This record gives sequence, structure tokens and C-alpha cells, in this order.
Amino acid sequence: MDKILEESIRKHAEWKGKIETVCRVPVDSREALMLAYTPGVAGPCLEIQAHPEKSFTLTRRWNTVPVITDGTAILGLGNIGPEAGMPVMEGKCALFKAYADVDAFPLCLHTTDTEDIIHTIKNIAGSFGGINLEDISAPRCFEIEKRLQEELDIPVFHDDQHGTAIIVAAALLNALKLVKKDIHKIKVVISGAGAAGVGICRLLTSMGVTNIILTSSHGILEDDPRFNPTQRELSKTTNPEKIHGSLADAMKGADVFIGVSVKGIVSQDMVRSMAEKPILFPCANPYPEINPNDALKAGAYIVGSGSSQYPNQINNVLVFPGLFRGALDAKATKVNDAMLLAAAEGIAACVSDDELRPEYILPYAYDKRVHQIVAAKVKEAAIRSGDIRPQ
Amino acid sequence: MDKILEESIRKHAEWKGKIETVCRVPVDSREALMLAYTPGVAGPCLEIQAHPEKSFTLTRRWNTVPVITDGTAILGLGNIGPEAGMPVMEGKCALFKAYADVDAFPLCLHTTDTEDIIHTIKNIAGSFGGINLEDISAPRCFEIEKRLQEELDIPVFHDDQHGTAIIVAAALLNALKLVKKDIHKIKVVISGAGAAGVGICRLLTSMGVTNIILTSSHGILEDDPRFNPTQRELSKTTNPEKIHGSLADAMKGADVFIGVSVKGIVSQDMVRSMAEKPILFPCANPYPEINPNDALKAGAYIVGSGSSQYPNQINNVLVFPGLFRGALDAKATKVNDAMLLAAAEGIAACVSDDELRPEYILPYAYDKRVHQIVAAKVKEAAIRSGDIRPQ
Repeated sequence: MDKILEESIRKHAEWKGKIETVCRVPVDSREALMLAYTPGVAGPCLEIQAHPEKSFTLTRRWNTVPVITDGTAILGLGNIGPEAGMPVMEGKCALFKAYADVDAFPLCLHTTDTEDIIHTIKNIAGSFGGINLEDISAPRCFEIEKRLQEELDIPVFHDDQHGTAIIVAAALLNALKLVKKDIHKIKVVISGAGAAGVGICRLLTSMGVTNIILTSSHGILEDDPRFNPTQRELSKTTNPEKIHGSLADAMKGADVFIGVSVKGIVSQDMVRSMAEKPILFPCANPYPEINPNDALKAGAYIVGSGSSQYPNQINNVLVFPGLFRGALDAKATKVNDAMLLAAAEGIAACVSDDELRPEYILPYAYDKRVHQIVAAKVKEAAIRSGDIRPQ
Repeated sequence: MDKILEESIRKHAEWKGKIETVCRVPVDSREALMLAYTPGVAGPCLEIQAHPEKSFTLTRRWNTVPVITDGTAILGLGNIGPEAGMPVMEGKCALFKAYADVDAFPLCLHTTDTEDIIHTIKNIAGSFGGINLEDISAPRCFEIEKRLQEELDIPVFHDDQHGTAIIVAAALLNALKLVKKDIHKIKVVISGAGAAGVGICRLLTSMGVTNIILTSSHGILEDDPRFNPTQRELSKTTNPEKIHGSLADAMKGADVFIGVSVKGIVSQDMVRSMAEKPILFPCANPYPEINPNDALKAGAYIVGSGSSQYPNQINNVLVFPGLFRGALDAKATKVNDAMLLAAAEGIAACVSDDELRPEYILPYAYDKRVHQIVAAKVKEAAIRSGDIRPQ
């Protein structure tokens, strides 16, 4: 792993930036300048003043999304600060463009205060067609996303919550086909009750999963002061059998384990304690909750992880480009549950029933076809839901 | 004029944006993703965390500048709101790239509060190598620029103040050669005491002009409540002959008239009242303080205006691309007076003594050679001044 990090540092020093801005119009003559700049540009300015919605047609706003972080939850590295998070933000922007032709721009914020982040993003939102929040730590990320989505009229998406939720949901849909289990009857354990764990719990619930147990480093969520307000709230609506205790207690008899926590906390004995044909998605980065090969040896039927070194990489790279492409194309005013579900179904559908097998439940991260399918599904769902600007 | 505005609206609707973001690195294989994105990207993240200055070498920060407005002073259109100002901001970004390879990004702010603007820009500044403020109305723009330059360690430049000042100074340097007058002995009248007028006054003063009179719509600046604090302060350090009254009173015997105010306020009689070989730069947009042809008929020796329809267009398009190119290349930590002056001298030097004549005192706005020369001069001045990051 260290070798890849070193090689990446070398490459980044050579690249000097993974994205750049280019000029799309002629500006090399007096006549060209008069149209693209002064005096002609007063025309589109006055047109937008008179019809504010034209900011989406007379400028690049319609296709532009910032990738915004405060640097508090960068990859598995934690709170490393805003500038140190920029290589990830720039990477996402590069993928946005390469995979879905979205013009994305990285912004790191020098504040970790919830209200200040909300206020700053609202101040700049008029420049954008949507907002991608990134690597902002829980529980602040919940309030920030919720408030921004309520107070802005463009789609707001916190990738760590929903991107991960969508790709896990897509993996689960295909895995359930293979084990022939009904989504309404499965028992799911989610290890990790931060942004990703909470997002996964919410999406699976909206898909009809009724028996979910969430655990954090303090064990199964309970309504007591060891847990944050979001977690305490979730403890009331999940865990219908009211099981108490540790992750090991939660996993007994579970059909599905989803890990978005820390490495090595799942043992082979815990896998053996699960229901028949257990499905495990240990997604902790860079090291999973259990090594996929160890899980298989202990009886796991299907294993997916965050790593590209094993089969079934569960990578939200498959989600955000197509999701925003669809939302922007639909002129969506928000990202709603129907759009999240449509994205998950779109990704799952990229693996045909003929191709589907325990080692191949998801398409590959760099498969560009996926983003087109996700975009079409999300656009359709947005239009059907009505959460769009007048067309 | 209206025809150009209409044609520009049509073109903008067709372009759907004058800039876009592109991906500069390979992302189309598992191996490529591992370097540009996860897991390799953790390498440059940790490297920046350990050495914060590396955010300038491992990301695009070194070459990236936002063009930021609050929409309060867009062109000659006034306070038309942030989104309505975006076509101008995007136009500047297009020129930044086409003329000087700077990656610029347009941001419109939904606030006109001085402290809020400062705070918002400080929150996002870690993403950028410099800050270009644009079309923010006076007097707020003075405080905003001053505070940001004091509190940030990257160059901050308010184009309406300094861009206009630099191009006017360049025009003046060459005009004075033609009329063979000494810059230390001329009398200059500036009509308009907003961002541009104040910026021009400050730069000309730093260049050795000692006799400047500023006027606003209330007449010659005085230390009384008709004028804002910036103007009252300037009234004490300008106008050494302590002339009172109107613009007409100020212009008697003046060598140079510079207009950054409103159309039609200079009469032919006022031109006739000036010193011999009068120089007039009526720059109000889109209509000048006096029609250049009328000024020439009344005895003006050299006339330059904001319009490309007459000789000697005084257009700050010649300034900002090269100025930021030079500042970024020098790793400048601020924009200081030496850099402003170097830019003006660089532009003036683009017209050789052989070429120089009353109808040709400035290079053309789309002459890319100018930006290279300005960049080199500004870089040199920045390095000489020492206002740079460790190299």
C-alpha cells in the first residue's frame, strides 16, 4: 500500500493538478471580445436580472457542481484539514468530468462550524447547479446537508452518506438475487454509525428492509449519552428485536453484514454465527473489517469490500458522476429518496442475470457505461417525482 | 449597441457557458484510479498535511483564481444581483485562460455585507493561489480588498480599482511622451470617486503625480458629509491648490482628464479650458463622459475611451491576465504597488517609440503578447519586492 501512496505523490507532483479550466468561446478578435465580454455581455446580464432562471441557460451554472469539504473526514485519514483534503476533492472533480461531463470544482472550507459551513455554501450557491458535500464528519454532516437541501433550490448530495448508501444498496440488490432472499425479511447489521452507516440505514429502510441493527465503537446503538443525537434517534426506529450488546451479539443470525467502520473488528467466528449464505460487505478503507478471503473461508457466500484488490469492489465512484448528470439534466431542485433508489437500481442492472455470480455483483469502477445508465434512471426518477424546475 | 447585446444573448444561449472544467489525468483503468483517486490519493493528502505549502504543488491551487462578485457594480449596470453578474465573471475567466493560462473560476456571492464577504472569501481561500475581486461597489470594496490582503497570504486584486488604474497609467505614460510633459508637473482631474477613481488616484500618486483633483456627482471632493470616509480622506491629500466647486472648475488648466463616471458630463467648453495639448480619457461605459470625436474637435490632443469603436481603447482586459500570471509564477503573497506599476510600464512598453502616435498609445485588447510582457514584469517586481513564498 505504501508504494502506491508514494507513487501517487510522485504523479501528483508531475501533474500539478488533476483538473483545469478551459475557455469554450472565441476571444481573439475585437468582434469576438465584444460578444463574449464587453460591451455585449451586458445583454445576458440584463436578461438574467429580468429572468433569474436564465442563469441556468446563459452561463455554465447548469453543469457546474462544487465538491466541498471542511477536511474533517478525509478518506480513512480523519481530520487532516481543508488543504490536505484537496487531492481527494480534485480527484472527484476529475472523475465527474471524465465519467459524466459534469464541470466540478474543488473547494476546501476553513471552518468546521456547522452554521458557518451552511452560511458559506448558501453564499456561493448561486454559482452552481448542484452541491456535492464531501468528507465532512458526522454528526455535523447530517444537519449541514438537511439544512442546505431545505434552504436551496438545487440538488444537495453528501457523497459519504448517500454515495456509499447507493453503492451498498446496489450490491445488496444483486447479492440477494443470488442467495434468493427477500429484502423485506433479511436481518442486516451495519457496523459504523457515522455519515455512511446512517445513510445506508436510511436508504435500506426506504427500500423495505425492516430489521437493521447499527453498531458503533460503543456497541449496538442505544438511547443513552454514549451516542450522538442522530444515533439515539436511530436506536428507536431500528433493531426491532431490541438486542443489546456488542457487534458480535448483533451479528448472530444476521443475513447481511455491512462495515463502514474500522479494520479487523469482524472475526471468522462472527461470520460463522450468521444465517446461511451470509453476505458481507466489509468496506472500511484502506483495510476492511475482515479480510475478504478470511470471510470466505469462514463460510461467507458473497463478499464485497472497498478495495480494488478483491472481487466486488464497493466504490462510490460508480455513483456520484451519473447521479449528478441525471439531476442536472432533469433540472432537479433536490436529491430525493426516489433518485437515490433509482441510482442503486441502475447500478445493479448493469450486471445482467447471466453475468451475475458471487464474485461479480457490481460493474467495475471505471466502466463509463454505468454512469450513463445511472444518469438516465436518476433523471427519470427526478422528473417523475416532480422535484424539478419549470422546464 | 442594442444589436450587440441581443447578438450576445443569442451567442450565450448557444454557448451554454464560456468556460468548462476538464480532467488532466488518466482515470480509465483500475491502475489509473488507484493513483489519481483511492487508495493512492491518501499519499498527497498526508504530504500536504505534513507540509501545508505543498497544496501549491500537489494540486491545481498554484494556478487557480476565483473571479468573485457580489453583483453590486456590474459593468455600468449597477446593482443587478449576483447571478446576473455571472456572464461578466465567466467572461473574465475565459480571458484569464485564453490570454494567460490561469485557471479561473466564477463565484457570485449572495451577500453584500462587508464582513460577510470577507469571511466567506477567507473560508474558501485555501483552494486558490490568488483572489480576483470584481464589480463590488465602493466604498465597501476598499475595506474588503484591504482586509483580505492583510489577512490572507495569497495575492488579492480588485480589478475595478487596480485593473483600471493600471491601464489608465499605461495610457498616461505613453501620452505624456507624445506631449512631452513631465509626470511630476502635470495637473490631473479624475471624474468619479468610486473604486476606479480612487484606484487611479492612488496609483498615479505612487508614480509621482502631485496635483490630482477628484470629483464626484457632488463636485470636487471636500471633507464634509456629502462624501464617504474614503473620499473625505482623499480630499485632504489631493487637490493641493484647494480648488472648490464643480468638475468644470476642476478642469480649468488641467493637463489630463480621466473619466470613470457617467456619460456626457464633459462639454467642449470644458476641454477648451484645459492646458495646451490636453489629454482626455473619458472611460465611462458604455457611453463616455464626452464623445471622443467631440473632444478632438474641441482641441484635445490625445483621447482614449472605454470603447473599442474609437482609437486608444482603455480596456483592463490588457491587465488582469498577465498580472495574475506574473503573481502566480512569482509565488507572490500579495499584490503590491511595485507590481501594479510594473504592469503599467509593461503595457506601455508594448507600443514602441516608433509606433507611438496620438491615435495609438496602447496595444490592442486581444494582443496576447502583452500578457506575456506584463507577466514577466510583474513576476520580476514581485520577486524584487520580496513579497513571495519561500521558493
